[in-house]
This record gives sequence, structure tokens and C-alpha cells, in this order.
Amino acid sequence: MSNKEMIESGNQKIEWARNHMPVLAAVRKQFEKEKPLEGHRVAMALHVEAKTAVLVETLAAGGAEVAITGCNPLSTQDDVSLALDTRECIDCHASYDCSTEDYYEAIDKVLDFEPDITIDDGADLIFKMHTERPEMLATILGGCEETTTGIHRLKAMEREGALKMPVIAVNDAMTKFLFDNRYGTGQSSWDGIMRTTNLLIAGKNAVIGGYGWCGKGAALRARGLGANVIVTEIDPIRALEARMDGNEVMPMKEAAKIGDIFLTTTGNRDILSREHFEVIKDGAILANSGHFNVEINLEDLEDMARSVRTVRKNIKEYDLGDRKVNVLAEGRLVNLAAGDGHPAEVMDMSFANQALCVRYIAENTLVDGVHAVPHELDVSVAEMKLESMGISLDKLSSEQDEYMSSWSCGT
Amino acid sequence: MSNKEMIESGNQKIEWARNHMPVLAAVRKQFEKEKPLEGHRVAMALHVEAKTAVLVETLAAGGAEVAITGCNPLSTQDDVSLALDTRECIDCHASYDCSTEDYYEAIDKVLDFEPDITIDDGADLIFKMHTERPEMLATILGGCEETTTGIHRLKAMEREGALKMPVIAVNDAMTKFLFDNRYGTGQSSWDGIMRTTNLLIAGKNAVIGGYGWCGKGAALRARGLGANVIVTEIDPIRALEARMDGNEVMPMKEAAKIGDIFLTTTGNRDILSREHFEVIKDGAILANSGHFNVEINLEDLEDMARSVRTVRKNIKEYDLGDRKVNVLAEGRLVNLAAGDGHPAEVMDMSFANQALCVRYIAENTLVDGVHAVPHELDVSVAEMKLESMGISLDKLSSEQDEYMSSWSCGT
Amino acid sequence: MSNKEMIESGNQKIEWARNHMPVLAAVRKQFEKEKPLEGHRVAMALHVEAKTAVLVETLAAGGAEVAITGCNPLSTQDDVSLALDTRECIDCHASYDCSTEDYYEAIDKVLDFEPDITIDDGADLIFKMHTERPEMLATILGGCEETTTGIHRLKAMEREGALKMPVIAVNDAMTKFLFDNRYGTGQSSWDGIMRTTNLLIAGKNAVIGGYGWCGKGAALRARGLGANVIVTEIDPIRALEARMDGNEVMPMKEAAKIGDIFLTTTGNRDILSREHFEVIKDGAILANSGHFNVEINLEDLEDMARSVRTVRKNIKEYDLGDRKVNVLAEGRLVNLAAGDGHPAEVMDMSFANQALCVRYIAENTLVDGVHAVPHELDVSVAEMKLESMGISLDKLSSEQDEYMSSWSCGT
Amino acid sequence: MSNKEMIESGNQKIEWARNHMPVLAAVRKQFEKEKPLEGHRVAMALHVEAKTAVLVETLAAGGAEVAITGCNPLSTQDDVSLALDTRECIDCHASYDCSTEDYYEAIDKVLDFEPDITIDDGADLIFKMHTERPEMLATILGGCEETTTGIHRLKAMEREGALKMPVIAVNDAMTKFLFDNRYGTGQSSWDGIMRTTNLLIAGKNAVIGGYGWCGKGAALRARGLGANVIVTEIDPIRALEARMDGNEVMPMKEAAKIGDIFLTTTGNRDILSREHFEVIKDGAILANSGHFNVEINLEDLEDMARSVRTVRKNIKEYDLGDRKVNVLAEGRLVNLAAGDGHPAEVMDMSFANQALCVRYIAENTLVDGVHAVPHELDVSVAEMKLESMGISLDKLSSEQDEYMSSWSCGT
Repeated sequence: MSNKEMIESGNQKIEWARNHMPVLAAVRKQFEKEKPLEGHRVAMALHVEAKTAVLVETLAAGGAEVAITGCNPLSTQDDVSLALDTRECIDCHASYDCSTEDYYEAIDKVLDFEPDITIDDGADLIFKMHTERPEMLATILGGCEETTTGIHRLKAMEREGALKMPVIAVNDAMTKFLFDNRYGTGQSSWDGIMRTTNLLIAGKNAVIGGYGWCGKGAALRARGLGANVIVTEIDPIRALEARMDGNEVMPMKEAAKIGDIFLTTTGNRDILSREHFEVIKDGAILANSGHFNVEINLEDLEDMARSVRTVRKNIKEYDLGDRKVNVLAEGRLVNLAAGDGHPAEVMDMSFANQALCVRYIAENTLVDGVHAVPHELDVSVAEMKLESMGISLDKLSSEQDEYMSSWSCGT
Repeated sequence: MSNKEMIESGNQKIEWARNHMPVLAAVRKQFEKEKPLEGHRVAMALHVEAKTAVLVETLAAGGAEVAITGCNPLSTQDDVSLALDTRECIDCHASYDCSTEDYYEAIDKVLDFEPDITIDDGADLIFKMHTERPEMLATILGGCEETTTGIHRLKAMEREGALKMPVIAVNDAMTKFLFDNRYGTGQSSWDGIMRTTNLLIAGKNAVIGGYGWCGKGAALRARGLGANVIVTEIDPIRALEARMDGNEVMPMKEAAKIGDIFLTTTGNRDILSREHFEVIKDGAILANSGHFNVEINLEDLEDMARSVRTVRKNIKEYDLGDRKVNVLAEGRLVNLAAGDGHPAEVMDMSFANQALCVRYIAENTLVDGVHAVPHELDVSVAEMKLESMGISLDKLSSEQDEYMSSWSCGT
Repeated sequence: MSNKEMIESGNQKIEWARNHMPVLAAVRKQFEKEKPLEGHRVAMALHVEAKTAVLVETLAAGGAEVAITGCNPLSTQDDVSLALDTRECIDCHASYDCSTEDYYEAIDKVLDFEPDITIDDGADLIFKMHTERPEMLATILGGCEETTTGIHRLKAMEREGALKMPVIAVNDAMTKFLFDNRYGTGQSSWDGIMRTTNLLIAGKNAVIGGYGWCGKGAALRARGLGANVIVTEIDPIRALEARMDGNEVMPMKEAAKIGDIFLTTTGNRDILSREHFEVIKDGAILANSGHFNVEINLEDLEDMARSVRTVRKNIKEYDLGDRKVNVLAEGRLVNLAAGDGHPAEVMDMSFANQALCVRYIAENTLVDGVHAVPHELDVSVAEMKLESMGISLDKLSSEQDEYMSSWSCGT
Repeated sequence: MSNKEMIESGNQKIEWARNHMPVLAAVRKQFEKEKPLEGHRVAMALHVEAKTAVLVETLAAGGAEVAITGCNPLSTQDDVSLALDTRECIDCHASYDCSTEDYYEAIDKVLDFEPDITIDDGADLIFKMHTERPEMLATILGGCEETTTGIHRLKAMEREGALKMPVIAVNDAMTKFLFDNRYGTGQSSWDGIMRTTNLLIAGKNAVIGGYGWCGKGAALRARGLGANVIVTEIDPIRALEARMDGNEVMPMKEAAKIGDIFLTTTGNRDILSREHFEVIKDGAILANSGHFNVEINLEDLEDMARSVRTVRKNIKEYDLGDRKVNVLAEGRLVNLAAGDGHPAEVMDMSFANQALCVRYIAENTLVDGVHAVPHELDVSVAEMKLESMGISLDKLSSEQDEYMSSWSCGT
């Protein structure tokens, strides 16, 4: 494709996404009218694909200047990146399959842009500022963080007293994690696995590593596709939930022997590593939906393999001698690296939270540390979403309201 | 049945429950050895049926003297009540279908017993002490509360500065509400509805009032039984969840016109009232799983009805002229008033929390107010449950532990 | 209860069932008007409970005289039996928990009545006539058979040339087996198990013996209640279906070791027998939904048990020394012997087929052998049912009709 | 891609498919040894993609010479087509997005090859022979037909006495339609829709046109992905099944107003046509999984549209003025035209039936007409599949076998 065709393709994708993100559209409308971000500079490190582009547009519509790069080497869609870069007030520095060096160079570029607000997906911008460019922290009003893994890093920093700026944990908004992490990851991970492998899910043993919100969604959809689902966990309460939701629960060393498809969603490393590969079933398919590519230990696998080859687009076969193992998308998040990422409708809610939180940072002064998304913003996102879906709710009558706040009515 | 036969029947039920409550059995074993409740007097107002009896036994095994009454006029099983009353160190004052006067008199009796620890299911004991017997509050070490509605009342009291004793919100333990409220209420409510009506759930429009944990469980099981499920809500975030879990969502006035079976789980009043009865579908079945019998407004129904008659055990038909409506179990919690309540295995976890919290109150000094269940107790319940189910989990390696607490590993 | 109270209770149950059987109501309306069964005598051996009573009423409304007895010693509801017996033109000879001797004596009584049409559930009437009262076959116009097991017996007779009367295989009507066997058995078996045991289904290993229509329904509902489902089969195609529907599949000897609840639905004997009891999990719950009580081999169990005792209503515990096993309802169909049988709405369709087939036999001359339900009757039942549910369908346009019958339109 | 790269890509896809088709592998092993097709010439018109290539290889391994073309202009994968054409004894004439003229010319080419056995998917080869090349019928031993639509055409021909060759209805093998049509179409259609639209299925109204085996699978998976499912039907019995499986059922004119995604699976024309487009919801997504592109009436849509444009790969937007409608893959089977078709594991069973039936035709003499797949072949496919999955079954004991064939054991 020529550059022009690429831009056209990117714009087409963005338009499609925009048409399926009604909450963000409602926010943009407010932003266009009120220009709450006038004079602000927003630096972003997010998966650069169509839905993200609609968030970028929305911030620009609010008056911001925006610089953006990717947050994962395999999740950038080049056509969208190019299309975004043509827009006014928007610089885009992301490219697909860039080297680690280029990846961090692009991070530097969006920081060179001297933002006063950041949006991260995995905390790379914030981490870079704290470790290499601490002088920037003085002028930063605040940041937003998109994902569980990023929040995890930021809370570790906060605990150690190392976090020197306010950050809103957008991931922890209910209208974000209950939907994006659960239904978004659930659907898009299996979409990625199905389109990459063309294999049947029904009748397979699907092993889900972790039963957090992403794992719950992944298991739910696997059952919905006819799999027999096995969950591995370290947390006893989540393990019980998994079992009572109709899954089997066992340690990964047991699951490895019988699993057909493995999907890791933990945010931790080594969910599948040497000890599991030693017993893993021949022909196993391994995929990851966690933020970083550390959940499947590829070094162990490479070390154990006689040979490695690409057997289908986005599938690498590791020949372990007596058995073969297939890794999807190099162990990077399979929904983005081998698909189009989360469905537009869930990103609509997640990114509406982002846009509203950027505005909140611009309009309020926050102390350093990790902050929750203000509950009224969270609720407003749900309300806008329901409205776009044509769903109306009951309202409390005054008698009901009173009943709920009283404590004297008994049996 | 003779008294003796009643006692035998009660003991048989208790033994069956005991054999299916392995966590409570493990707690009892500790209690028998360590006698942590020696010298304490526990007053209880809970549904008096077999599973509760096993909790009572456990407390007695720990050295406590126990007095118990019911927490709902229709949920007492007389055979269990009689059997319990024969035990040493246990007084039982509950009887089925008692008058409101008798109900409150029994409450008084267990308070006359001069407890230092209370266990409530709906906060009636605590409420009575605060309003009529405030002198008792001086010697009370603390109380435990079993249900959402009770917590709700207690938090309202706390907000107004009216709560003069420490209370542990047992309901809010994860091993309680995630299982008892969701899977327990889910299964037992439909068990109650099916055995009472002998009707088919598949192909029906099942309307679930509320999408809290009880409502989520009720909707999950209704879908599992083949119903088309409609959820009503006042909370936008829960409404969105309901929709994305595969339910329809609409206001009750719309749902009333098309629902075949209605199940309320909100903890609020008037979920079904005059405005709904005016349009409700002919032949509709109305049931409630909320704590109090206020969710279906029976006064409105009686007021509108030409005649009322019992058409099958536990079913009253209200003839509205052009349409008829069937109310199960007088609008009281259908799983208890028209069934045997929650399955033993979920009460096992809920009541293990109760027993451990009673011990915690006996061994610690708490300030007045509503307290969370200590997380380590909550986790220990899950661990004991998993062990009884023969399920083992993964353990974090030291590398994984370090990874999770660090923040410097990036893309 | 006094006799009068029994009759009142029976009539109440019948009225409730009648109100939930709209197809049969529509048939009765025709029958009352056209009296197609005038002069005919119908002998029935069916489960004598409320839904069956509505069928009996319907036949009587069509002008028939009816004599009925049970088809299983534990499935008769005495109040319904008494109520039925008070009606004009109806003799009822069934009683609960009768001896085998009484059971067969009652069969004789309804044959003494000199029927010209029979309705069987398990073929006992037809078998008795062929083996002991062959003279009756000369005047019999035909019979109807309700269940898979009966059809099975009749086809065996037909193959051997032993069947000397026409029989309509009502079980094989699509509006019968697709609904009654699947959704009816599925729901009512679990209803029976839940009300009898008060145990949680979620998180259990539920083992379903057989994956015919009853087994499919039983597995579907078990999954819907949160169980991990294991299916045992002898048929490779059904086994594959079971696996791809999300169940595990393994031989019973393997399943016995890990199952928590077992439900047999095969129509064959010894699904659970000595070899399984030798390895069965401690505390296992055994239930049967097949027509005869031969699926769980109780002789083996009694032979192996040190002691047997009733541990809860309808539950017998067999103490095997190192393990205990609980059998529900003496291994008889758990939905009828420990419940109220199929939901009214599915029996509505099954029994509408019965009524229409009795009329068909009265109005047509059939040759000896097993006959299918005329397809137009089957379809008319579905149409009446849909109408009662307020559901309308698309109609083929003439273009569509033509397209479907042509073969010349290609790619 | 260069020709060489195309061939490499095609071979890679074929190898991946081959590795996931164990039943066909077992058949190939027999074929290689026994060469049952030596001297036979097989003409095929099937979707030319990787799984089909494995069937072609298998036939060639059995000694046949094979000529193949596509059975749909949009389902050919050019890399697979080229790779196949390089093989010995195999001619491949298919290309993607060919004109109707080229399509029929390719059909002629595979007939020029003078086959004695045919394999069709939609009956185009057989139709062409009957209408234009009747002389060929003299030497044809028989044909196999893959799909419901083809069977439908052939039975219409048979009814009119127009079918002049024997054809085996491979589609009607249980190991074909129960799996391929249900789980195959179910999964792959939603895979195609998800990858094409990147939209969320959960919370949507998914309208499934038809509740045959394909429709059942499509509805099952839609529910499994969190949709609220609406089924349209013309058949009352299927409509009842749809409702009791937890779907809504209504006429398409009602469904059109509220559906978000429409998927047709009927085999008939005009499932969505002018009368529906007049009321269809703004933004609706229309897809088809039926064999021919007649289910969505595109002429009506073009006629009504102000403008048509491609808004994303494989999505055409029809602007109706007040509303817009999106059609996927030009209304051709969305799983093939916008995806990789059925998962390999289901085609494994379908194509093993094909291979065994081709052998059956070669080794037996059949009369003209539509024949069922011999049941023992059908069962053998299931047995081979189960073996490849490591699943073993129970076997009937001699007592069980005797019980099943006797008719004298009663209550």
C-alpha cells in the first residue's frame, strides 16, 4: 500500500471506531463546546489503533495538543498511526514491530513534547520520567493509567515513596475494569486465538492462567464457546469462585498435561515456564493476554527447543523433540498483536473515563499519589452508555429512598 | 408427628447438614481443643434450620452458652428447633409461623439471657437493644451481622452516630457474599420456586429485581434454567453489567407487562407495587428473596384484589378481576419460607466466618462501629474449603513474588 | 389429612396444573364440542399426579370412560388419585408405595374394565395383555406409549413378531421428546435432587449416565446450575456431542472416582453397579431418572453395605465401610418419586399428543405395529403451544416457497 | 507476494490444517496402503482453502486423480489454490473473487476432466451435468454432496424424477451435520463477524434467521458471547425449541426494529428484504452463513440506498437516508468470505465422511437417487475422532445388551 492508501485505510478504521463509540462522542461534543483542555499538552503511550485514535481526536477537540506513541511493539497499526499523524495538533510516533531501542526513543519523543498531562498503558511514560527525566515532574499536573499492570507498578512506587506526581487509576473505574478487562479481554482474546489458529474451541481443554477480571472474562467466553475450562490461581478466594463458576481448578503443572489451549491473564511472569514445558501436552497452543510478554517464559522455551519455525501467520512452533508447542504472537497480548484489540464499545467506556479524567486533572489540583476515578465520572460514563443503548432504569421513589436510609424497619 | 419424632427428624437434618459443612467441622475441631468461647454467652437471631444448628453446635463446642431465636416468622423449621433445644448449653426459642408478637417476645427472651456477643441476620437483636434495652450495650463485646440488609441498617445507624457497639459485617466477607449471596440465593430461590410451582423455567420471561450479588446469582441460574431474563435496576453500572451478561434491562413498569416469574432481591421496598400490578401479566408468579417481606407490596395487592385464595401450598392467588397474580410464600424469602434455604456448602463458608468472628470478638477489643471481617480469617475459610474439595493451587515463586512487588520491569 | 382434605388437596393440584396446560385446554374445548371418544373405553397406566389428571379429564370430556392406575409404585400422589376417583366416568386404582403385588393387581383392574384403547408409560398394560390376557387383543383398537423405555420394549416385540396390536409411539413426537425428555427431565430431575438433598450443585462434579434426550437435558441444566459435568456413554456419536457441548466424557469406572452427584438416564440396567461402587467417591449422591429402577444396581449395593439407614427423607445411606453412598428415592425416577414430576408446561405438550392420538386411534384403523405420531398432529401441538405463549412466526412468501422447491438456482 | 511465496504460504496453511485433522490422517493411512481409488477420477467443487486441500491430498493418496474448483466466488484462498495445483495428480482451477462467467468456466474445466465420481458443495457440478452435459451421466458412478442446500436441490430433483445418478448425502451423516453445521458454523460465523467488525457481541441483540443445525449453533455461540438472542423461524417446532433454549422468538419484521447484528442461516431467500429494511435499526450489521448469497436481498438494499461505500474491509455501508445498514462480505457466507471457514477439527469429520463415501462409491454399485451415508462409516468417523481426542467409552455388558433387546422386564 502507498502512504496515501495507508492513510485512507487508517482513516476508514478510525471512522468505523468513532461510529461505535457513542460515549466518547458525547464527551467530544462537550469538549468542542467548552474547550476544557485549551493550553494543555497531553503525552500518551497507548496501543496505537483505531479506538485510541478516537480518544486522541477527542482530547484535541477539547483544545489539547497531543503527542502519542505505542505501549507495545506489536500493537501499533501503521495505517492508523499515519492517519493520526496527519491531523492538526497531533504528533504520532508509533510504528509496528519496532525495535526495543526505537520503542524507547519514541517514548522520549513524546516526553520531549513537554506534556503537562500523561496517559499511560503500563506506566512506561511515568517510569521514564521518574528514572531519567525527573526534571519534568515539576511541571506535570498529573497522569492517567489504563491498565492493571500499570496500576500495580504505580502502587509499588507509591508504597516506596517513589511516586512524585498524581496519577488517576483509570483502570479501576467500574465502567472500565468490569467491562474492558472482563468482556473486552474475554471476547478479543478468543477472537485473536480463533482467527490466528482456525481451530475449534468446543471440546478443547482451555487453561486460563489467573481468575482476575481478565481471567474471569476469558473463562466465561471459553465456556461460551464450548470449551472445558481449567483455571489456575494462587488466590484461594478466586480459586473457589472459579470452581463454582463451573470451571476445573488445578495447579499449572497438572493443567499443562491436559490443556489444549493456554491463555495467561495474570500480570505476573513465568505462568508457563520450564517446569510446565517439561510436561506440556503435544500440540499445545500458548497465548497471553497480560500486558507484558513475560507470562510465557520464551527464554525457557527457546532453550529447550531443538528448532523454532513459523507455521502460520503469528504462530511459532517450538519443537521440543518428543512434543511440539505453538506460541501465538510471540507471547504478546494476543488480542492486540494478533487482532484488532478490544471491541470498540468497551474502549468507548474506558476512553471516556480517560478523557473525563484528563479534564479532571486539568481543572483540579491533586496531591502526588494514586487516585481513584471520581465516582460521579464513573457513573456518568455508565449513564451515557445506557442512553446510547436506549436502556432506561427505575428511579427510587421518595419512600424507597427513605426506607434505604432508615434503620428502624424490621421484620 | 410426635415430639420425639420431631426431634429425631430435626437431628437427622442436622446430621445431614453437618456432614456437608466441612469448614465448620474444621473450626469445630479447633474449638473443641482450644475452647476459645469459654465463659461467653452468645445470643442469636438467625433462620432456625439445620445449617444454623450446626453453627450453634460449633459455638457450644467452643465453650459458649447459646440462646437462639428466628429472624423471620416463616423460616423456622420446628423439628430442628426442638432438636436444638434438647442440647446442653443451648436454648432455642423459635417456632414456625409465629405471630409478630411472639416473634418479638422470643427476641426478648434471647436478650434476657444476657449475652456478651450477638449474631444477627437483619439486625433485629441489635436494634432491640439500642431502642429498648440500651443498658445491655455496656456489657456487649460485639456482634456479627449475616446479611446485606442488616449491614445496611447498621451503617445507617453508624452514620447517624447511633451505633453503640462494635459489629463485624460478616456479610461482607468475600467468602460470604460472593458465594452465599450469589450461588446460594441463586440456586435456592429457584429451587423454592420450582418445588412450589412445578412450572417450567425454560422459555419463560424471568424478571429479576436488582442486580446486586443476590440478583446476579438469581439471573445466572435463571439463564441456566433456560429463561429469558429481564433485570430491573436503579444503578447504571449494575444495569450495564446486567445487559452485558446477556439479560434484558428495562424499568419494572415495562417488565411487569411481559414477565412470567418475578423475583425481587433488592433489599428495598415496593419493587412490585400498585403501579406494576395495574399492568402486570395475567398469571404472573411473584416471589421475593430479599430479607424483609416489603419488596412485593402485599397491601397494594390486597387492596386491589376482589378475592384471595390459596391455590397450592405456599401459593396465594390474588384475583384482580381481569387478571390473576400468584404470590409465593407470602412474599417472604422464597428459598427459606418455601424451601430449605441455602445449600449446606455455602452456609458452611458463611457460618465458618461467623464462628471465627465470634472468636475474634471474644479475643480482641473492638471500638464501636461496623468492622470488616479480618482478611486473614476470610482467606482461611477459602483455604479450608478448597482443602475439603481436594483442590490445590499454584504458589508464587520467589521470582514471581519479587516481580509483583517491583515496578521497574517494563515493555 | 382426612379423606375430604385429601380430595380437596388433589383437586387444588389438578386445578393448578390445568391452568398451566393451555394446549390440553384447547384440545378439551374441541373434545367437549365434538365428543370424538363417545363410546370408547380408555385404560391408562401412567404416573398418577396432577398433570396426568388433566389428561384424564380431557379424555372424559371427549366422551370416553377411563380407568387408570400408576406405572411406578412411588410416583402416585394419593390426594390426586382420590380426587380423580370421585369424578364421573373415571376409575382410579393407584396408590403410593404399593407392593409389587398390588401394583400388578391394579393393572389387572384397569384391564378388567375392558378398554378398547390403552395409554402406557413403560408398556406394562400392553405387556400384561400379550402375556396373560391375549383374548383382549382382539377388541383393542390401539394403544399409545409415553416413554422411550416403553417404545424400546414395543419395538423389540415388533421385531420378534410378538406385537399384536397397533401402538402409537407418542414419545417419538417431536413436541414430546424434544421438550418433555430434554427440558422436562432436565429441570425436574435437578429439582428433585436439590429439594431432597439441599446441596449446592455449583462446583460439584455431576456425572450424567447417558446422553440421549434426557441425558442432554440433565447435563444442560447441571451446567446451568454451575456443575462441572461428566458424561458417560456407549455411543461414539453421542459421546462426541457431549464433549463438544462442554462436558467431560469418560467411562463410568473413571467417573465413579471423582463424581459428587450421579444421575442415570439411559433406559438400561447396571449403569452403576458393583465395579463402580468399589471405587466410588465417599459421600456420592446417586439418583436415577430412567423409567425403571434398574439403572443403579441396588442389589449390589445392599450386598456390599455393612448397614443401610435413612439419613433424610428420600435418602438412604449405604455404609460400605471405608465410604458411604447416598441413594435418592430408592433409585426410582427422582423427579417423580422425590418431586412433582415434569413441569406442567411440558406435560401439556406430551399429553396433548396423547389426547390427539387417542382420538386418531378412535377415528382410524391401524395395522398392528409401532406407528409414528402423524406429523400434522405433532405440528398442531407446537402451533397451539406457541399461540398460548403469544409467539408468532414468519410465513413463507410464495417466492420463498418456490425457491425451496426448485433446484435450478445456483451460485 | 510472489507466486513462490504464495505457494509457500498455501503449503504452510495446508500443513497446519493437516496437523489438526487426525481422522482424515487415519483415513489417508488406510488409503496409502490399500489404494482404493486407483483408476478413479474425482471432480470437486468445494471451498478451496486449507482443509479442503487436505481432503484432496487424501483422495490422491488413495490413488485418485483429482480436479477441483471452488463452489463460491469469495471463498477461494489463492495461496492454497496455487499450492494445490503444484501437486501431482491434482488440478486446481479456483481463484478468489472470480466473475460468474469464470466461475462456471472453471466448473466446466473440472467436468472436462471426465470424472467418474464427483464431490459437490451446493450441487453445482451435478446440476451442470444434468442440464448441459447429460452425456456424462452415463459414466458417473456417483457423487457426494456436502451441504444442506445441495441436498435440498438434489431431493427436489429426485422428487421430480430428474436425478439420474446416485448421490450420497454426506451432509446428513450425524458426524457431519451435528458438528460441522452446529459447532462449525456457530463458531466460524461469529469469528468472521468479530474479526470483520471489531464490535462487542455482549449486550447486543443478535438476530438469527432460522433454527436448523446452523442456526442452533449460531444462537448457542451468540449466547455464549453474551448476546441477547432473537430467533426467527417458520417452523413451529423449531420455534418452540428456540424459545426454550433461552432465545426470544418473533417475526423478522419485529426483530428488524431492535436487532443489532443479523445472521441468516436458512438456505432460503429474502430472509432480509425490503419490508425489513424499511424498519431496520440504524447501524445494523447484516451477515449470512447460508450457502447462497440470496438470504439478504441485496437488490432491494441497493435499490433503496442513496449511496453505498466500503467502510472497512469486507463491510459495505448502505445509506438509506434516515438510517445506515452494514453488509458483511457481500452477503456471502461470512465465515468463509470474511474468515478461514470452519475450524479444522470439524472439517476433519466432514471430510473423513467424504473420503469414506468416495471409496464406498468406488467399491459399490448404487442406484440413482439420494443415499444416506452408511451408518457404520458414520460411526467409524466418530470412533476415530474420539480416539484422536484420547476419550474412551463404556461398553455394553452382555447383561445390558440382553436387557436392551428384551421386552419382558417391567416395573
